[in-house]
Amino acid sequence: MTRFAVIMAGGLGERLWPLSRKETPKQFLRLLGERTLLQQTVERIALLVRREDTYIVVGRQHVTSVREQLPDLPLRNILVEPMGRGTAPCVGLAATRLSRVDPSGVMIVLPADHAIADEERFLQLLNDAATVASAGTHLVTLGITPNHPATGYGYIQALNHFVASGPSTGSEVLEVERFAEKPDLETAERFLQEGGYYWNSGMFIWRVDAILREMKEHMPKLHSALMEIEQHAGTPTYEENLERIYAKQEANSIDYGVLEKSEHVLVIPTGDIGWSDVGDWSALGGVLETDEVGNLIRASHIGVDTSNCTIISRHASDKKRLVATLGLSDIVIIDTDDVLLVMDKSRAQEVKKILKIQAAEKEDKRNLE
Amino acid sequence: MTRFAVIMAGGLGERLWPLSRKETPKQFLRLLGERTLLQQTVERIALLVRREDTYIVVGRQHVTSVREQLPDLPLRNILVEPMGRGTAPCVGLAATRLSRVDPSGVMIVLPADHAIADEERFLQLLNDAATVASAGTHLVTLGITPNHPATGYGYIQALNHFVASGPSTGSEVLEVERFAEKPDLETAERFLQEGGYYWNSGMFIWRVDAILREMKEHMPKLHSALMEIEQHAGTPTYEENLERIYAKQEANSIDYGVLEKSEHVLVIPTGDIGWSDVGDWSALGGVLETDEVGNLIRASHIGVDTSNCTIISRHASDKKRLVATLGLSDIVIIDTDDVLLVMDKSRAQEVKKILKIQAAEKEDKRNLE
Repeated sequence: MTRFAVIMAGGLGERLWPLSRKETPKQFLRLLGERTLLQQTVERIALLVRREDTYIVVGRQHVTSVREQLPDLPLRNILVEPMGRGTAPCVGLAATRLSRVDPSGVMIVLPADHAIADEERFLQLLNDAATVASAGTHLVTLGITPNHPATGYGYIQALNHFVASGPSTGSEVLEVERFAEKPDLETAERFLQEGGYYWNSGMFIWRVDAILREMKEHMPKLHSALMEIEQHAGTPTYEENLERIYAKQEANSIDYGVLEKSEHVLVIPTGDIGWSDVGDWSALGGVLETDEVGNLIRASHIGVDTSNCTIISRHASDKKRLVATLGLSDIVIIDTDDVLLVMDKSRAQEVKKILKIQAAEKEDKRNLE
Repeated sequence: MTRFAVIMAGGLGERLWPLSRKETPKQFLRLLGERTLLQQTVERIALLVRREDTYIVVGRQHVTSVREQLPDLPLRNILVEPMGRGTAPCVGLAATRLSRVDPSGVMIVLPADHAIADEERFLQLLNDAATVASAGTHLVTLGITPNHPATGYGYIQALNHFVASGPSTGSEVLEVERFAEKPDLETAERFLQEGGYYWNSGMFIWRVDAILREMKEHMPKLHSALMEIEQHAGTPTYEENLERIYAKQEANSIDYGVLEKSEHVLVIPTGDIGWSDVGDWSALGGVLETDEVGNLIRASHIGVDTSNCTIISRHASDKKRLVATLGLSDIVIIDTDDVLLVMDKSRAQEVKKILKIQAAEKEDKRNLE
C-alpha cells in the first residue's frame, strides 16, 4: 500500500496580516522558527511518507515559493490549482492525480500551516488512521481533543460507539455523529460539558478510491468535472482545460461537500498533541514560548508594565528600530515596513475587517481615477 | 517703559518622546499645526512686545533651530545657556542682560512650548499683569483656573484678598498665599472644592529690577554669580566665564527659589483661555481637534472599534505606511523612523521611565565594551 501525503498550501492566512500577505501567505513564513510552516509540515511527515509520495497543492503564484522552500521535492509533486475553490476541488484534484499512481493508496491530507508540538504522538495517530483507512471503507479524520470552548473551529461530534482501537497505539477510533459549524461560546461550552466533541482539524486520511467514490456520491458535479480534467492529463491543453473547468466549480470545502453527508466517517481523537492552526495573532502566543508575564516578543523592545502582549517587528534583528510599550496588556503589535497593526488580542479573529476596509478604499480610489 | 518678552526654550519635552528628542525638543516641533510651538509663542506675543525686545533663552545645541525658525529675530536676542540649571538661573541670566537695556522695563517670562486657544484674552491678561508689575513692587504670575483636579501641575493658592482689578479688562489680581507642589489626586480634588487654587503656569511678569532685587534677597549665591558673569560682559572671555560660573550653580526653579519665599507675589487668574502645556501625549488630544469618537489621528489610518486614541505617524503625509487598529481605546501610538511607542493614554506622564531604561541599557552596553 502506497502512503501519500497531500499538503494543502493554498490558504491566504489573512488573519495573520500584515506579516502574512497575498504574495507570501503564512505557510511560507518563518513564524515558528528557522523553517517555514510548509517546511515544518513536510519534515514532520517525512518519517511516515516518502518524499516522492509527498504532494503539495498550491496556487500558481506560489509555485516559486514551494520550489525554493522544498528544493528536494520532485517537480511533478507540485499540483497547481489555477484558482482557489475551497478544499473539495483541491482534494479532488489531488485524488484524481494520485489514482494514476495507486488508486488503493492512502492519502494523508494536511494543511500546510499547522503547528504540532508532540510530533511522535502525531505520527502514531496518522499511522493508526492510515491502517484504518487502508481497508477502503471509511474516511478518517483527526479530531483535536479540545482544551477550551473555542469558537473559531468547527466541531465533530463522535458517537459514543467504539469502533476499533488503533493498531499501533490503541488510540480510539470513533464513528462520527455529525459535523457542527463554528459554535457561539455558549454552544461551545455545552459541547465541552457534554463531551464527545472534537475540533475539526482539517486533517484527513482515506484511500484515494474511497474519497473519489464518496465524492461521486455526494458531489457528483465536481466528480465529473474532475474526470473531465483527467481526460486531458498529459496533453498540451491540460493547463488550459484545467483552468476552464476549475473556474466553473463552486467553492466548497471537503467537510461540507463530502464528510457531513457521508455515513462512513470515523474520527480519531488526538488527545493533547499541542496542536494549533496558528490561525491568528492570539494563537501564536499559545504556540511559542512567552516570557514570565506572558509576552511574546520578537523585537528590540523596552516594556514598562507590559504583559500578555504579542510584539513582532520585522526590524527585530537589525536593532535599528525600538518598540517601547507602557501600561499595556493583551495587545498585539505587528510592525512591518509598510503596515503597523495594533489591536486588542481578543479581537485577533477580526483582522479581516481591516482588509475589507482597505480593499473598499482601494476600490473607491480606483473608481475616482 | 520697555516691555520685554523672555521665552524659555531650554526644555527637553521628554514626555513627548519619541517625537520630541534631545536633538529636537518639542518646542521646535510642528506639533499643533504649520508652525512650531516656539514660533507660535513668539507670534502670539508679537502684538504686545516688539520683536527687538523679544529674547529667547536656549541651550547652545539649539541655537541653530532658533535661528532657522525665527529668522527675523536679532541675533543678540538669543541668550545662550551653557547648560540647563532650571528656570532660576535662566531667568536671572535674562534679567541681568535686560538690565543693561532698561532695568525698569517689564519682563514677560513665557515657556516656549505652551498652547493657548484664546490669544486675545491671553494678551489682555498679560497687558494687565504688565501694568501691575510696572509699579516695581510685585512679582506677578498667571494662574490657570483649573477645570479638573490635575496632578501634573503645581498649584498657587490665592488669598481671598482682592488687590486690584486689571486696568484693561477688570481681571482679578490676587495676593498669593502659597505655592503647593504637584498634589496627589485627593489633594487636587480638595483644592478644587475649596476654590482659590490655580495651576502654576510658569508664566511670570515682573520688572527687571524687581526680580533681581528679590533674587538678591532669596537666592544671594545665584545673584552674586550673575553679577560676576555680568562683569565679563562684552569681553572675549565672556562665554568661558559664563560656562565656568553657570556650571557651579545648583539647579533650581524660579518658583522654588524666589516666588515661594517672596512676600510680594500676585496671581492673576486666567479663567478659561484654553491653556495647555502640551505636557504629554494625553494632553495633545485635549489641544487638537479629535474626531467624533475622540481619536486624534495624524496617520494614514484604518481603525475598527477605535476610540479616544492618539495615533501619530511620521509617515502620515507620504501615505506609504498604514497604521491599522482594532478594538483599541485610550491608547497612544507614536510611530517614528527608529522608535515605535504604544502606551495606555493614562500612563502618558510616565514616558520618562522608558528613557531611563534605554539610558541604563546603553550604559550597560558601554561598560561591556
